[in-house]
Amino acid sequence: MSHRLAVLLIRCPDRPGIVAAISRFLYTHGANITDLDQHSSDDAPGTYFMRLEFQTEGLDQPLEDLRPPFAEEVGRPFSMDWTLRSMAERKRVAILVSRQDHGMLELLWEWRRGDLPCQVSIVVSNHPDLRSATEALGVPFHHVPNSREIRAAAEARMLELMGNVDLVVLARYMQVLSPEFVRRFPSRIINVHHSFLPAFAGADPYRQAYDRGVKIVGATAHYVTAELDAGPIIEQDVGRATHRHDVEDLKRMGRELERRALARAVRWHCQDRIIVHGNKTVVFA
Amino acid sequence: MSHRLAVLLIRCPDRPGIVAAISRFLYTHGANITDLDQHSSDDAPGTYFMRLEFQTEGLDQPLEDLRPPFAEEVGRPFSMDWTLRSMAERKRVAILVSRQDHGMLELLWEWRRGDLPCQVSIVVSNHPDLRSATEALGVPFHHVPNSREIRAAAEARMLELMGNVDLVVLARYMQVLSPEFVRRFPSRIINVHHSFLPAFAGADPYRQAYDRGVKIVGATAHYVTAELDAGPIIEQDVGRATHRHDVEDLKRMGRELERRALARAVRWHCQDRIIVHGNKTVVFA
Amino acid sequence: MSHRLAVLLIRCPDRPGIVAAISRFLYTHGANITDLDQHSSDDAPGTYFMRLEFQTEGLDQPLEDLRPPFAEEVGRPFSMDWTLRSMAERKRVAILVSRQDHGMLELLWEWRRGDLPCQVSIVVSNHPDLRSATEALGVPFHHVPNSREIRAAAEARMLELMGNVDLVVLARYMQVLSPEFVRRFPSRIINVHHSFLPAFAGADPYRQAYDRGVKIVGATAHYVTAELDAGPIIEQDVGRATHRHDVEDLKRMGRELERRALARAVRWHCQDRIIVHGNKTVVFA
Amino acid sequence: MSHRLAVLLIRCPDRPGIVAAISRFLYTHGANITDLDQHSSDDAPGTYFMRLEFQTEGLDQPLEDLRPPFAEEVGRPFSMDWTLRSMAERKRVAILVSRQDHGMLELLWEWRRGDLPCQVSIVVSNHPDLRSATEALGVPFHHVPNSREIRAAAEARMLELMGNVDLVVLARYMQVLSPEFVRRFPSRIINVHHSFLPAFAGADPYRQAYDRGVKIVGATAHYVTAELDAGPIIEQDVGRATHRHDVEDLKRMGRELERRALARAVRWHCQDRIIVHGNKTVVFA
Repeated sequence: MSHRLAVLLIRCPDRPGIVAAISRFLYTHGANITDLDQHSSDDAPGTYFMRLEFQTEGLDQPLEDLRPPFAEEVGRPFSMDWTLRSMAERKRVAILVSRQDHGMLELLWEWRRGDLPCQVSIVVSNHPDLRSATEALGVPFHHVPNSREIRAAAEARMLELMGNVDLVVLARYMQVLSPEFVRRFPSRIINVHHSFLPAFAGADPYRQAYDRGVKIVGATAHYVTAELDAGPIIEQDVGRATHRHDVEDLKRMGRELERRALARAVRWHCQDRIIVHGNKTVVFA
Repeated sequence: MSHRLAVLLIRCPDRPGIVAAISRFLYTHGANITDLDQHSSDDAPGTYFMRLEFQTEGLDQPLEDLRPPFAEEVGRPFSMDWTLRSMAERKRVAILVSRQDHGMLELLWEWRRGDLPCQVSIVVSNHPDLRSATEALGVPFHHVPNSREIRAAAEARMLELMGNVDLVVLARYMQVLSPEFVRRFPSRIINVHHSFLPAFAGADPYRQAYDRGVKIVGATAHYVTAELDAGPIIEQDVGRATHRHDVEDLKRMGRELERRALARAVRWHCQDRIIVHGNKTVVFA
Repeated sequence: MSHRLAVLLIRCPDRPGIVAAISRFLYTHGANITDLDQHSSDDAPGTYFMRLEFQTEGLDQPLEDLRPPFAEEVGRPFSMDWTLRSMAERKRVAILVSRQDHGMLELLWEWRRGDLPCQVSIVVSNHPDLRSATEALGVPFHHVPNSREIRAAAEARMLELMGNVDLVVLARYMQVLSPEFVRRFPSRIINVHHSFLPAFAGADPYRQAYDRGVKIVGATAHYVTAELDAGPIIEQDVGRATHRHDVEDLKRMGRELERRALARAVRWHCQDRIIVHGNKTVVFA
Repeated sequence: MSHRLAVLLIRCPDRPGIVAAISRFLYTHGANITDLDQHSSDDAPGTYFMRLEFQTEGLDQPLEDLRPPFAEEVGRPFSMDWTLRSMAERKRVAILVSRQDHGMLELLWEWRRGDLPCQVSIVVSNHPDLRSATEALGVPFHHVPNSREIRAAAEARMLELMGNVDLVVLARYMQVLSPEFVRRFPSRIINVHHSFLPAFAGADPYRQAYDRGVKIVGATAHYVTAELDAGPIIEQDVGRATHRHDVEDLKRMGRELERRALARAVRWHCQDRIIVHGNKTVVFA
């Protein structure tokens, strides 16, 4: 079904006439809108966000040929940031892991079942442990040792191995990435943090949560920025804790929350459902 | 803020060009779209649903004068069912209750605080018990005894008292309404049923839930149709139950769920966020 | 039903034989245990917590006469902190509020319906606004202006008015209490903070949550200690937020969460279901 | 840690003195109680349920030698159904599947990580599809074709292959089991049904849920009895649906709910946390 759909994602200064201009353009070229979601930020001057799905069968020309006229007639006049993509094109995804397998396995599993619309092209780990689990699911695995001292070389090697990926997923990758690495993938690195951010940023959040005696624990999927654990939040999930939960129980429960929050965030990214605005996200889920 | 907004609610056969036609019309007349939500049903031939909020300050004419040209240029050509309403107009709401106060009090309370955008014009009960609680919140209360034998007369009296209301809310009204009464308010009577429908329709659902040993109980707000507990569902809410909950515990927990489901359903109705389609609802929440 | 029940609440160093000693004592005196909950902390040396409900009809002597032998035969040998209370005795509760009514109304409402087993003896506010709402529900209301400059006098006046209360509830009381006041009510002042602590402690948490772009917001009921917003957490509740929620929407949603978290915390306290241990709570809910 | 723990699970007619008798017995023999959960049913005459965990290091004799004296001194006098088991003994589990892998993979995955305290000894399927996925995780896989016509032979073959298992898990096994098969495993077959029972029992529940327009969908893990989808419910989980979810979306969301409900039910069973009473369960979770 989705092979004949395209997605238009837009951000621009808010002003009257945007919907009219876009919908007229699409209608004129034979696109049939099947889904439309939009949002205006309430800061001043406002910003306008839109996600549009349309069927491409009736187009009067190939999708790629629509880009230049769209840029000229709509994009430039409204000062838009925009992307236009066929949903048949799958984003290429690299997964970075350390030793914990739950985040990675959830993604690979959903992907194998067809529930994650992307191409998982590689798994890279700073430990060799998950090689067989990864390869058993048909995905190439590379062991690239990493640590503070050898970070530059390790990252260079990873970039070489990953090639031209659209998205990097940190599925519990226990190494800090360099600012240079992060800058290469703006709003294109997703991390899962094992707490309900901004509570318990930093190390060992389940221990922190246990010590504070919280009654609800959480997990957070967010885009990675230069500042640790402070990037735009995409999705969070929570579960109830009681005095009976020790740290190991919280970790076990947390793994379930991490899997859910991460899988949703990656799916939404792959479906072009997320627009970053400042340090926040608009998610058209 | 919301005084200068209007809502356009639309249902029509799905076909290309709807968004373009509507947005061009609004743009031409100076309306600035601030919120737009739409949906296409996936049955064939499809049905298209849309909700649009726009600012009315820049309109080239009064809102009411837009109706005839909209009907001619957009409504008729696309065979639309549509309503266009200023959000400054408050819907008139009648609440029917019996002895239980929680649903009614939740609504009156939210309404007093300004969180429920409507005009609660009357409370009618078949018992006198809630008179002082109602009047203390500034709402007229009428006691109209009702039972199967005197139903026709009771309903006639209620209609007379309610006058021209836009919505009737059954906040645990323990009398069955006649088909004639229901027919006067198509998709304009909201009931709260104290179970997770379609499970446990009919009488004493908490007892039924207890006897079945379910681990989650619920409440359902729905539009009333001729068939009991079978109308279009608007909202449901749930809570966890364990073997420790007896029937009274389930009732207590259920009251919280009923309050939440009912309050959301009434708010959404009053904000023109609901479109009924067959026996289901589209809720632009 | 609950008039013939008593509750025994216990904290002591963990060691073998505690359950045996308590249950033998109760059995010998004709008490029939109907509910028993216990927990051992996993720190070393461990602490043991227990809550026991038993029927008092078969007791061989009045409940109060059981206290001395229990202290001698069980309490002292096991170095217990313990309370023994008939559930027919209702705790006396004072509610402190400022201008926001939702927390107070939720409590008064549940109390009037019999769902909150306590005696709400007084409402004190630093503003006069909620007088009529309080008095309409049959509870005395006192206006005691308060501010940093007159805090000592204001608190003295409040103490005089409250008399001998068992629990003080801060239902959005926007004044800081003095350390002296807090010290008078150890683990007997419950506050509701309008965020998911420890995230967004301090002022204007909904604004903070909005600015951070979180996808879930929360509310926290906790015991008050000398350090602001850092006392033992009793209960938390959460709800989903999206980019569509502005600060006012978060506040509205938050009011619902605050009401639920606060009502549960107060109910559990009044039913002797909570034991404070260090900066955490054991909640036998 | 759990190697030195034992679990005592008890059901008996309710009467005074049960806790005293059990705790005295255990104390006398050197057992240190670390967890105790109990419940009294509120029907008359009541039934008493208890789960006790205790450390076995201090026992005055091997665990198995405690059984005869316990039976004589406690079990018989109180007419108890009881089991006493070391937590080091792992229950043997057989999983029956058809083509859908999500339930099975969730269990195998948790089991491999050590989060599911049992021994998964075999997977049997009426289709060959899941062989490699199962064997990759180190579990023997057997393909036993099944259908109404060959049911007796198929079940005989399955029983032979499974050998002496303690629990049979139907992880979306799309064949009806015979009453004879079910009778061999009383309260020892767990099924996951892909709806919020009792709503949408029978075939194609997601289609039923879609057609009814519910706003919340669910999954149910329950013990299998002779009557289809009517056995004692162990656990349920739910998720929110909107008008945007088509049947495929509900199925995808449902898979997540099924995995969670099933994994919890199996974990609780393996930890002796469940007692069946009539058509309901007591779950000491």
